[in-house]
Amino acid sequence: MSGVTGGEDKEHRNGEENMAAWLLGIKTLKIQPYHLPALGPHDVKVQIKALGICGSDVHHFKTMRCANFIVKKPMVIGHECAGIIDEVGSHVKSLAVGDRVALEPGISCRQCDLCKNGRYNLCREMKFFGSPPNNGSLANKVVHPAYLCFKLPDNVSLEEGAMCEPLSVGIHACRRANISPETSVLIMGAGPIGLVTLLAARAFGAPRVIIADVDDCRLSIAKNLGADEIIQVSTNIQDVGEEVVKIQNAMGSGIDVSFDCVGFDKTMSTALNATRSGGKVCLIGLAKSEMTAPLTPAAAREVDVIGIFRYRNTWPLCIEFLKTGKIDVKPLITHRFGFSQQEVEDAFETSARGGAESAANEPCDYHED
Amino acid sequence: MSGVTGGEDKEHRNGEENMAAWLLGIKTLKIQPYHLPALGPHDVKVQIKALGICGSDVHHFKTMRCANFIVKKPMVIGHECAGIIDEVGSHVKSLAVGDRVALEPGISCRQCDLCKNGRYNLCREMKFFGSPPNNGSLANKVVHPAYLCFKLPDNVSLEEGAMCEPLSVGIHACRRANISPETSVLIMGAGPIGLVTLLAARAFGAPRVIIADVDDCRLSIAKNLGADEIIQVSTNIQDVGEEVVKIQNAMGSGIDVSFDCVGFDKTMSTALNATRSGGKVCLIGLAKSEMTAPLTPAAAREVDVIGIFRYRNTWPLCIEFLKTGKIDVKPLITHRFGFSQQEVEDAFETSARGGAESAANEPCDYHED
Amino acid sequence: MSGVTGGEDKEHRNGEENMAAWLLGIKTLKIQPYHLPALGPHDVKVQIKALGICGSDVHHFKTMRCANFIVKKPMVIGHECAGIIDEVGSHVKSLAVGDRVALEPGISCRQCDLCKNGRYNLCREMKFFGSPPNNGSLANKVVHPAYLCFKLPDNVSLEEGAMCEPLSVGIHACRRANISPETSVLIMGAGPIGLVTLLAARAFGAPRVIIADVDDCRLSIAKNLGADEIIQVSTNIQDVGEEVVKIQNAMGSGIDVSFDCVGFDKTMSTALNATRSGGKVCLIGLAKSEMTAPLTPAAAREVDVIGIFRYRNTWPLCIEFLKTGKIDVKPLITHRFGFSQQEVEDAFETSARGGAESAANEPCDYHED
Amino acid sequence: MSGVTGGEDKEHRNGEENMAAWLLGIKTLKIQPYHLPALGPHDVKVQIKALGICGSDVHHFKTMRCANFIVKKPMVIGHECAGIIDEVGSHVKSLAVGDRVALEPGISCRQCDLCKNGRYNLCREMKFFGSPPNNGSLANKVVHPAYLCFKLPDNVSLEEGAMCEPLSVGIHACRRANISPETSVLIMGAGPIGLVTLLAARAFGAPRVIIADVDDCRLSIAKNLGADEIIQVSTNIQDVGEEVVKIQNAMGSGIDVSFDCVGFDKTMSTALNATRSGGKVCLIGLAKSEMTAPLTPAAAREVDVIGIFRYRNTWPLCIEFLKTGKIDVKPLITHRFGFSQQEVEDAFETSARGGAESAANEPCDYHED
Repeated sequence: MSGVTGGEDKEHRNGEENMAAWLLGIKTLKIQPYHLPALGPHDVKVQIKALGICGSDVHHFKTMRCANFIVKKPMVIGHECAGIIDEVGSHVKSLAVGDRVALEPGISCRQCDLCKNGRYNLCREMKFFGSPPNNGSLANKVVHPAYLCFKLPDNVSLEEGAMCEPLSVGIHACRRANISPETSVLIMGAGPIGLVTLLAARAFGAPRVIIADVDDCRLSIAKNLGADEIIQVSTNIQDVGEEVVKIQNAMGSGIDVSFDCVGFDKTMSTALNATRSGGKVCLIGLAKSEMTAPLTPAAAREVDVIGIFRYRNTWPLCIEFLKTGKIDVKPLITHRFGFSQQEVEDAFETSARGGAESAANEPCDYHED
Repeated sequence: MSGVTGGEDKEHRNGEENMAAWLLGIKTLKIQPYHLPALGPHDVKVQIKALGICGSDVHHFKTMRCANFIVKKPMVIGHECAGIIDEVGSHVKSLAVGDRVALEPGISCRQCDLCKNGRYNLCREMKFFGSPPNNGSLANKVVHPAYLCFKLPDNVSLEEGAMCEPLSVGIHACRRANISPETSVLIMGAGPIGLVTLLAARAFGAPRVIIADVDDCRLSIAKNLGADEIIQVSTNIQDVGEEVVKIQNAMGSGIDVSFDCVGFDKTMSTALNATRSGGKVCLIGLAKSEMTAPLTPAAAREVDVIGIFRYRNTWPLCIEFLKTGKIDVKPLITHRFGFSQQEVEDAFETSARGGAESAANEPCDYHED
Repeated sequence: MSGVTGGEDKEHRNGEENMAAWLLGIKTLKIQPYHLPALGPHDVKVQIKALGICGSDVHHFKTMRCANFIVKKPMVIGHECAGIIDEVGSHVKSLAVGDRVALEPGISCRQCDLCKNGRYNLCREMKFFGSPPNNGSLANKVVHPAYLCFKLPDNVSLEEGAMCEPLSVGIHACRRANISPETSVLIMGAGPIGLVTLLAARAFGAPRVIIADVDDCRLSIAKNLGADEIIQVSTNIQDVGEEVVKIQNAMGSGIDVSFDCVGFDKTMSTALNATRSGGKVCLIGLAKSEMTAPLTPAAAREVDVIGIFRYRNTWPLCIEFLKTGKIDVKPLITHRFGFSQQEVEDAFETSARGGAESAANEPCDYHED
Repeated sequence: MSGVTGGEDKEHRNGEENMAAWLLGIKTLKIQPYHLPALGPHDVKVQIKALGICGSDVHHFKTMRCANFIVKKPMVIGHECAGIIDEVGSHVKSLAVGDRVALEPGISCRQCDLCKNGRYNLCREMKFFGSPPNNGSLANKVVHPAYLCFKLPDNVSLEEGAMCEPLSVGIHACRRANISPETSVLIMGAGPIGLVTLLAARAFGAPRVIIADVDDCRLSIAKNLGADEIIQVSTNIQDVGEEVVKIQNAMGSGIDVSFDCVGFDKTMSTALNATRSGGKVCLIGLAKSEMTAPLTPAAAREVDVIGIFRYRNTWPLCIEFLKTGKIDVKPLITHRFGFSQQEVEDAFETSARGGAESAANEPCDYHED
């Protein structure tokens, strides 16, 4: 994943003229002044120091939309970020100026049934960084509720802090699928989402994780990140039967949970057929809306299909995993750029190219198509 | 549903020459002698007094197969049954000669992980009445483990007892989907499985149940059985969007759980789109193996798809519901036949015809294709 | 339960001088002017029209404390209430002036882990009507967040709306104990909490509910409210063994869940011993802090002890149960008083006397001692 | 824990005269001939090669009883064992002569509701090695159902295999308490049960485990086995308040789950008070039947008390943990004895002395008093 590292924009600090990367049109980003919202009593102002670029950012950049969300007016882009507290609202007690924090990007309504029942990620009134019409966080500063800013321990860098966001998708998926030391895991797809799911599954104690992809380069990254077995698969739907046998043989015992981190007919078909009776398939990838897959035979073996939307309450656990070294996200950070017009453009162009040839630009933050 | 009522075959009782309805070929049933297996110490011998015919029986009758199960040699047909205890094994304490019982038709291995964890319905070694190569229960007597025979209260008839089997599918589906007084329910399909699901959902306290079907005759039966609203739908996949709006308006609030009791692309698409974020779709119908449906947008709203295979531990609850009148299955019994060559043939022909024009012969006992 | 019915205090409406019942000292309540907090954009102003008095109110009245909460300065009393919307904040869309609403009395922080995970009832920053130092709702008007005010259907009276609060305790207990048509229930104690638990258990479909108490008058009320069996028990701890046998015989089958709505050594001992292996005891009553009970033998049968604190997300379900008639709370309303100095004093004196001789003044809202 | 290592009793092999350690009276054990039960078609005959002695064995040895189970006639003692397959029944396919196996000691009825629902450890008809009136496994050979014998991998010794039994208690407790990388854990008691719970909690990923005991020797063993913090506590009930503060400070954040591996008033009180709102206390220790503890304040914070009886379906996971080194049980094996009259007597005398001065003889297999 690519990332932008914020500079200590001194002149801005003094004059409080803030700057942000505005998406003005297809492949048109401009760093321009950004009038920060007022600091409420429960808010903090954060100097953004690190920001990752994910597939949904690239979608917006390339097409001015992602899933059903359409960019209709200039919008600050970006949402995977960390920074340093610059100012705290009058009621904020948990944070102080100078604290290093990772930011959870979505603000839910906290009033609807889903919020009150703890499933706030599904809130229909969610205001999410860089998801139209809400401005994002590729800015030198942002204002955000204190309760969504999580203090980083000394041994976790701001860059790693920004990685809490994509990692959260893997964490949430593993929680929903109930991954434990008793769960053998298959992951379809070794793109960014597949990799964070692999890291999370390992951290939750999965005793054996097999990952499958078409690309052997990605597979070798997955192997280095801790996959027990890697299996190269084709894009030909006819191969599902044979590949399922290969995967099951590689596992040696029943596959308890399969994560489809791609979302094609073939990956889903493989996941459904490979999983043991009574197991689960967790669908994270968003490649296709209408999907053709052998749902009925899977349902008749009580293989449930679990859906995932972003994450909830994941930052503390991410930070714990980073702090204790149970998860190392540094290998996922591949490029670094400064916060200047040229470098931001380069960052997005690089990410967009990655997307052309690979799934490197999978969205971590939403999955709808 | 059609049923066969056993007569008091006196001559057989004396000579112990037992008779059963053997499936010899496509549409070829013959009542012939049946050599009962030996009575083990934990077994009982039951005079079968009532037996229902369901879709899987009709499949076997018409095609000599159902899903992956193929009838390769003559097999006694039938599995939905109740009767009177004729003899008890030496270790049986819970039952006595003369007791009226309903029979759970599947004998699991009780040794595998799934059995030991309480999900015995998924056992791979299951021996199930009338599922090849296991003989069924359309016989004057059968031998069965005592622990799978459940005593009927005085106010529950043997016919009603035989209905525990199809009813169990609805019960198991409602349990897996966690139906309660807080769950608003949509049922796609008003065939036998849709109707038993409706009865079960009501018994679990669902405050509002809507049922949709193409056939207004079936819908009016569903209305009489307690559906709050009935909605006629088309077979045209283009109508999904419009019909979802109609269904949601009829519900008035979010649909928590949808049961697809049909299993076509269209019914599944409707179920997935109609269900609220965070809700569940329970797939019971088996019409199609490969299914094309908008799985991704549903998964991205964390609408989970729950599969169902037969049932487990349902007889006591069925009997409780029948005893207390929370469920009345009598309206589901439409035809009655005696246990003679002619009448058994008529029973199956009638059921098979029903199948041609309706889903009256949906299998209750397995759903794989 | 006793209740106070608000009058249409016209003069207050014009001059906006609001009045409330202030607790000034032990057994000293005065109706005095009350300066309402400012109406925030998400708040509503409600004319209180019905208010119930529960045990914690009476505790405050009699002792200036309840559990660890101490009344240190004058406080408006009361928390079980319903009323009519008088004014809505600028952002409120879900409610309009004139709407009849029931009020959920506790405002949680919505920022802590417990809130974010949907267990907001356990929030340490909870601001709860009439729990020191927070003012209550025995006032002609209150200001409250709109999202905690629930519209009443036409066929649910304001008095019934006020009863959502005690009823919520029973609902929450039944949810935590997972009461369903498969759960046979024992309730220890037929005081107000026992009765709302009985009503809730019935509404969740419990097939058989037995209730035990020392007082045959209360037991006959329980019988009228739908208990299948009532069992008079002693206060002598020596009788536990014999009474457990009596209760188990009355149930006829295993007791799946026992609710201890009293909280004495004896009631808890009975509950623990009576419940079947693998069942649950739900402790709601608060009579004693240190409790002596046979916890170990129960634990060794995997009988879990489930705790209950107030409720969460219960109002919509309460209202549904009241609307459909699945629960009728009217028999629980025994006395009515107007909102005048004399009548409020009478109301509390009456409730306090009830408390002397019975458990009529059990707290519904907190259980700590 | 002490253990007995079986020799290769050649003469017995030939003549098939088997020997076992019979408990004849208080502190009276004799190795005498043992007539093995017939080998059923689903059984195996196992040469016992390693056997551990736990607290319930010592209870039987010293008092001829444990909890409600009384030794009324001579009984073969022992139940924690592993060995080598000597003969297989006619239907056994999963095991072969020469396989090294660990034995799960309890045979449940597999017919009752608890068995069918997967909670077979609570079966009332359980036949358990060395629990009267069932003979145990301190014999040169035993006959046991094949499905309860679990093959050991090459890198797991027979001694370690015998340790699956006590380890299973910790595994089952951690499963019931849902221990994961998100669960901070307090363990009261560093005896054998405390230590296996510690090992299991670590294996389930608990990020932080604190263990408390009165004995600093035991605490240092716990420290070596992986406890993050050890805390010495007193036996004085007055110290609970102070010690809770000390424990909570040592944890630094809320305690999600506390295991009481002792079962005294003081340990339970500490566990209840130390655990965060919404957390769980898991009661494993069996020291006292009637317990006096602050149950009510804990219940009013929704701290649930979870009971534990033995274990279910734990052998495969134990073996996985031993194989992968996630758990090392070798430090728990402290003494070794041969299978001769003298050595068996020494083994029990040694264990019994351990019990006098420590909790080294806690039962792992039942907890009732």
